[in-house]
Amino acid sequence: MGDSMSSARQEPIGVAVIGAGYWGPNLVRNAQATPGLKLRYLCDLDADRARRVLGDYSTVRVSDSLDEVLADPAVAAVAVATPAATHLPVAMAALEAGKHVLVEKPLAATRAEGLRLVEAAESRGLTLMLDHTFCYTPAVRHLRELVRGGEIGTVQYLDSVRINLGLVQPDVDVLWDLAPHDLSIFEAILPDDVFPVAVAAHGSDPIGAGRACVAHLTVRLSNGAISHVHVNWLSPTKIRTMVVGGSLRTVVWDDLNPAQRLSVYDRGVDRTEGTGLGAEVREQTIVSYRVGDMVAPALPEREALRAVMAEFAGSITEKRAPLTDGRAGLRVLAILEAASASLAGGGEFVTVPGDRALDAVG
Amino acid sequence: MGDSMSSARQEPIGVAVIGAGYWGPNLVRNAQATPGLKLRYLCDLDADRARRVLGDYSTVRVSDSLDEVLADPAVAAVAVATPAATHLPVAMAALEAGKHVLVEKPLAATRAEGLRLVEAAESRGLTLMLDHTFCYTPAVRHLRELVRGGEIGTVQYLDSVRINLGLVQPDVDVLWDLAPHDLSIFEAILPDDVFPVAVAAHGSDPIGAGRACVAHLTVRLSNGAISHVHVNWLSPTKIRTMVVGGSLRTVVWDDLNPAQRLSVYDRGVDRTEGTGLGAEVREQTIVSYRVGDMVAPALPEREALRAVMAEFAGSITEKRAPLTDGRAGLRVLAILEAASASLAGGGEFVTVPGDRALDAVG
Amino acid sequence: MGDSMSSARQEPIGVAVIGAGYWGPNLVRNAQATPGLKLRYLCDLDADRARRVLGDYSTVRVSDSLDEVLADPAVAAVAVATPAATHLPVAMAALEAGKHVLVEKPLAATRAEGLRLVEAAESRGLTLMLDHTFCYTPAVRHLRELVRGGEIGTVQYLDSVRINLGLVQPDVDVLWDLAPHDLSIFEAILPDDVFPVAVAAHGSDPIGAGRACVAHLTVRLSNGAISHVHVNWLSPTKIRTMVVGGSLRTVVWDDLNPAQRLSVYDRGVDRTEGTGLGAEVREQTIVSYRVGDMVAPALPEREALRAVMAEFAGSITEKRAPLTDGRAGLRVLAILEAASASLAGGGEFVTVPGDRALDAVG
Amino acid sequence: MGDSMSSARQEPIGVAVIGAGYWGPNLVRNAQATPGLKLRYLCDLDADRARRVLGDYSTVRVSDSLDEVLADPAVAAVAVATPAATHLPVAMAALEAGKHVLVEKPLAATRAEGLRLVEAAESRGLTLMLDHTFCYTPAVRHLRELVRGGEIGTVQYLDSVRINLGLVQPDVDVLWDLAPHDLSIFEAILPDDVFPVAVAAHGSDPIGAGRACVAHLTVRLSNGAISHVHVNWLSPTKIRTMVVGGSLRTVVWDDLNPAQRLSVYDRGVDRTEGTGLGAEVREQTIVSYRVGDMVAPALPEREALRAVMAEFAGSITEKRAPLTDGRAGLRVLAILEAASASLAGGGEFVTVPGDRALDAVG
Repeated sequence: MGDSMSSARQEPIGVAVIGAGYWGPNLVRNAQATPGLKLRYLCDLDADRARRVLGDYSTVRVSDSLDEVLADPAVAAVAVATPAATHLPVAMAALEAGKHVLVEKPLAATRAEGLRLVEAAESRGLTLMLDHTFCYTPAVRHLRELVRGGEIGTVQYLDSVRINLGLVQPDVDVLWDLAPHDLSIFEAILPDDVFPVAVAAHGSDPIGAGRACVAHLTVRLSNGAISHVHVNWLSPTKIRTMVVGGSLRTVVWDDLNPAQRLSVYDRGVDRTEGTGLGAEVREQTIVSYRVGDMVAPALPEREALRAVMAEFAGSITEKRAPLTDGRAGLRVLAILEAASASLAGGGEFVTVPGDRALDAVG
Repeated sequence: MGDSMSSARQEPIGVAVIGAGYWGPNLVRNAQATPGLKLRYLCDLDADRARRVLGDYSTVRVSDSLDEVLADPAVAAVAVATPAATHLPVAMAALEAGKHVLVEKPLAATRAEGLRLVEAAESRGLTLMLDHTFCYTPAVRHLRELVRGGEIGTVQYLDSVRINLGLVQPDVDVLWDLAPHDLSIFEAILPDDVFPVAVAAHGSDPIGAGRACVAHLTVRLSNGAISHVHVNWLSPTKIRTMVVGGSLRTVVWDDLNPAQRLSVYDRGVDRTEGTGLGAEVREQTIVSYRVGDMVAPALPEREALRAVMAEFAGSITEKRAPLTDGRAGLRVLAILEAASASLAGGGEFVTVPGDRALDAVG
Repeated sequence: MGDSMSSARQEPIGVAVIGAGYWGPNLVRNAQATPGLKLRYLCDLDADRARRVLGDYSTVRVSDSLDEVLADPAVAAVAVATPAATHLPVAMAALEAGKHVLVEKPLAATRAEGLRLVEAAESRGLTLMLDHTFCYTPAVRHLRELVRGGEIGTVQYLDSVRINLGLVQPDVDVLWDLAPHDLSIFEAILPDDVFPVAVAAHGSDPIGAGRACVAHLTVRLSNGAISHVHVNWLSPTKIRTMVVGGSLRTVVWDDLNPAQRLSVYDRGVDRTEGTGLGAEVREQTIVSYRVGDMVAPALPEREALRAVMAEFAGSITEKRAPLTDGRAGLRVLAILEAASASLAGGGEFVTVPGDRALDAVG
Repeated sequence: MGDSMSSARQEPIGVAVIGAGYWGPNLVRNAQATPGLKLRYLCDLDADRARRVLGDYSTVRVSDSLDEVLADPAVAAVAVATPAATHLPVAMAALEAGKHVLVEKPLAATRAEGLRLVEAAESRGLTLMLDHTFCYTPAVRHLRELVRGGEIGTVQYLDSVRINLGLVQPDVDVLWDLAPHDLSIFEAILPDDVFPVAVAAHGSDPIGAGRACVAHLTVRLSNGAISHVHVNWLSPTKIRTMVVGGSLRTVVWDDLNPAQRLSVYDRGVDRTEGTGLGAEVREQTIVSYRVGDMVAPALPEREALRAVMAEFAGSITEKRAPLTDGRAGLRVLAILEAASASLAGGGEFVTVPGDRALDAVG
């Protein structure tokens, strides 16, 4: 992800955080701790809320005016943590003011809106980065190396469960609230030639909240494998596990087990070639089982959002695309929109448009 | 489930076990340990295999002839543990010989075949019982009381995961191999007015085994809730958990945690009535969260198959339907057939025929 | 633990944190977040280290002079997070300057030094509080209610394991580094009439560090029960469990399981009265087993150090003894000194002086 | 452990199991399943109990007379599962009748009695084997290879916890009931030059059972390391973990986690040589920390008692000492007796007599 160390010697990049709600305080804290960044504003329509987030001991300025913040030449970049519906106007205003933008997932409320942001950033040569936080955890970075590096062989299936007693959101269903995490992780770890082609979504709203609170997503991949996501706001137990099955190895990621987040199993089922036996015997012998050791790699304990900020600073300084750029956000939006279409229909598979199709949306 | 104690005082019921493969030895062991049953034969086409199962110290007879066994008037009942494709001829022969029948899941290879067995048993007044073993575990019996007894409130969702490195079967896919467990448990615990109405199945065969090795089943229930089943032969880690979400309580069953199989959470999300506030505020306040204690009920450690045998003996002696009778097996077959139809199609929802429709199949 | 709410309306208490090492940053963060406290200084001999702790955005003053800090009338209280060997001079200087003192565990390097601090505070009517952080966790507060409230019956045994790959300290052994946590928790939860009377300690130094890195502590309590502590700097796995066995219930506290920190078992072994049978039968029947449900009480997630700060503020404002006052720290020192004597000897039991004896030390 | 395969081709060894209580049924089942053994009798003073153990389908003979069994020339070996107090007379009678003997732990009620059995067997050239079952588990066999093979480096500490709601025994305390497991495992895995030299035991009897129900054992080893055992009959939660700390690796064995019984950590604390710095700096730099991967080796699932039986058969056929011979049982008794002496005294360390001293006992 580049070397942002060099940026520390330069003038730090002035940053403003927009939005002092649920996620904003985390951005504030990590922006302050990142070499190469200089936090200048926390901006919220509710200035008191912003003041409470900063506390009584801070030298950071509070503003309730996005215009004021964007007009300040000391601000070179903004981090947007407002509701998804406002991402388009807020981020677009920032881009138009020539600021680099880090935006919370999802990129925008629709794929069309997201594409406008991507094009605005690309045409101006500005960084547009998605805060796909999980992609910056040591676990996912290791997983990415294992999967893209070929150590697990070909990808056979993915399964992600993300359930807990969650805040029922007033504006989005559980798919749009939680699945962006899983989809952006899939996006980050899969090889370039394994990508989503169609998605089916099933959901229910057993508490009458007016939107799906429980949902299952089946994503058919280009190599025939399926990846599955189970998201649920109503579960009293919190589960955050992902299994990535490969022909050589299978990796289990349990994010709630800090002592052993990743388990790499040298275990699996192989198909072996027939050996001239009769049909019946051959049917029973075409698979063999490997049960080898399990390795839990040592992973550093590091806050992912710190790495997000470092990558944001690095991509600006080095004028390169960040790991999770606007197009990555667009690909996640494409799956979410197809999933919503499936959910609104009868749960049938809906085609996920590819990158080329995405370009044609606007 | 009745009181089979009285049967102990009577002449024991002569039993033959048919099939000395994977499951047969368990039936042999438990039949021998059950008061009220007298094991007379272990019958297998491969008599040597049957002899090896019995070992060198047994007084039980071995036979390689089903006819011989069925002709013996000392045999009043048979337990069938042969491949599913043979259930129809074997069980039908037994019923026609006037024997009571306990049959491994699934009841038969098709719903039509299953119905023939049910009708044959009903017309003769014989017991036809399914060995839905899990339904006889202390955990499921307790779960059944909680769910049917109303303690969890209305059922909001069910989720079952049954994955492990499993034997790829030569004749059936992972749905038919594993999902009967989950579906028969749902069948046993759900109230009478909450039943499957449609099912969608997605699967894949990433190792080229010729049949689905990974599958996801979404069952839409009559009350709008969905139950989901994930079965997988390729997972290096074994998971067997079921979550039953209710409006008052949610139960998590982890069958691999003998120290705490059931966890009953007084936790959840409630919808509360609006209070005359504006739309925006109301939207955010219509749900409230309950976070109460969790109770793990004390459960006896008891082998489920022992209870299956006791129920088989009890239903014969008391001339009553067993807990898991032929019709329960038929209902599971109806869901499996609909799931297979969905899998063969594009994964769309397929209607599950109800009991009345089932009667019309033959 | 009193009501510190009222303090919020008054002029906040000016506080200085002394020591910017391992624990100091946590004190800084929590002092800033506590209503009723106003953090004025972070003081460290190494001013650069203090500046790094505060970061680039803080209005808090840095000082490398304890004298300067203590001379400032705006400072009414100090929180001392320096090495244990310096607690006496630092805390004594603060008390002599009329400041209230919160001090890291252990209170001082010796019991005699600790008593001097207690007497200095008592004679001046100043608060001297120990930062026994764990005593302020929701888990220990609940445990305290269960044990002191009689719900678990009489205390039968305590067992605490606190092991992980720990920093080998340059000045203290593993007993003085880790066991104060366990001993202060025992101190907080046990009823007044159950207290330590003697202690035996066994330890070893398998890596040649010059001091015990693995140690086992057996504390004999006044009611005949024993409490045991296992502390270990060399374990690759982190374990932090405490079992409190009672005649009615037993509580297991697993601090690394946030989803279920406390488990209260209605389980145990009872002695029942003999029933006139012969000796042999009676011997086998004098015990009976209870296997009831387990309850995991809902606990709030709350940072313990926040509650420490609130208690410090409350005790100052309300002019009352804090929950973990200097005498509590003195009782922990008494056990540690006896343990060190046992360790230096052959591991025999060494008497723990009681409160009255402690008064006589100075 | 030798190759018992060859024995299968010879005439099987006739065996009698003596004692149909708690453990006897397991011996019966496994003796029947072991090639090379032919179970001829189950002998118990209570013939009805023996009959119930065998069930209604067995061809094995029941006897209530040890004399009858020992007089039968078809019986070449006996497995003794009677109370410890009777091991001397029962096993001695068997040895005097020329039978090989497998005996439950502990070998005998006292070390002196045990030595008489060892000498009786040695003088007659008969096998005397201890059923130290855990030593035959795949986990302990692997652990033995890791420790004795040098892969973990030098042994730094051992810690074993074996607690659960256990049957309070009428004749022995918790030390004699449970600690033989841990001590025999230590015995099996430690290198020859690391052996117990002294032991201190602390215990309590909080329920008034008349003997210790909770006990802690500290065993000082010849290399200065300590091994610790915590046994407890009163714990509502079952724990069976052992940690073996080494200079190169540390192994954690959790016997209740079948999916990951052994975890081998490439993690630890090393002492590094001083580098000419001043004393204070050197003190802080003499240790370094390794945090490498963890490997959970694949282990077969195999019943340990099956391997015990195979080893018994093999040692008889091949006329060699079994892995857990009488002298291994004697070494365990030596520690237990020293522990009891410590417990009866004030908990001070008591010297454990070595092998040479043991020979002198009789």
